[in-house]
Amino acid sequence: MPEPGPVLRPIGRVESPLVDAGGAPNQGDEGAPEAWLVLEASVQEAMRDLEIGAPAIVLTWLDRADRETLVVHPRGNRDRPPTGVFSTRSQDRPNPIGLHTVRILAIDGTRIRVRDLEALDGTPVLDIKPVLGPVGDR
Amino acid sequence: MPEPGPVLRPIGRVESPLVDAGGAPNQGDEGAPEAWLVLEASVQEAMRDLEIGAPAIVLTWLDRADRETLVVHPRGNRDRPPTGVFSTRSQDRPNPIGLHTVRILAIDGTRIRVRDLEALDGTPVLDIKPVLGPVGDR
Repeated sequence: MPEPGPVLRPIGRVESPLVDAGGAPNQGDEGAPEAWLVLEASVQEAMRDLEIGAPAIVLTWLDRADRETLVVHPRGNRDRPPTGVFSTRSQDRPNPIGLHTVRILAIDGTRIRVRDLEALDGTPVLDIKPVLGPVGDR
Repeated sequence: MPEPGPVLRPIGRVESPLVDAGGAPNQGDEGAPEAWLVLEASVQEAMRDLEIGAPAIVLTWLDRADRETLVVHPRGNRDRPPTGVFSTRSQDRPNPIGLHTVRILAIDGTRIRVRDLEALDGTPVLDIKPVLGPVGDR
């Protein structure tokens, strides 16, 4: 086994009507409801330039995932052949980091309203990043 | 302070000619050299369906980052106004997870040759994910 790794510091939590995995879409653009990212007050400075209407990348910690799984049936469909998890978006993987492209709908203090987030209610939020435009615009 | 968070398990390391931050491009499509992802034998099953020539998303742990930084001058340029890190791709942020879109050039056992990876030599690798195509192709 490799040595113990770095420790994450969740910066907030997802507030969403999605409360169980059975009801969640596989990806955010497949029918996810609107949700809130509720950030810790300690990181408020880091969010001060987020813009309403802009897309953003959200990283989450999929805390209900199985970290021992290396092979899955894609999208839980037993008719599809078993596939190595690095070729799937399965939540079950050694480091279950969720990668979501969302759109910012509103900002209220440290609460950020987004659409297209398929993460379950209570999921820890790890990071928010801008979507990269063309090289000259960065 | 929030409670201690989840512990990451690096799945491998980057082998790259990039050895110091001063020589590294800001993003992988801005002149990064080819590099290897050297994965642990314990996760080999998870990589069995990776395809040469395909794009992939690589997540890394930017272990030389400053996790206390919340505001930076974008791209280290002092002529640009200070900006909250959630609106930048700065490595300095509470959870310094690198997000890289690469192309797979070759696979040799648990070694994966990629282009467009700007991570420094020795950087821990956390995950590999497929780039999502249109909904019907997933």
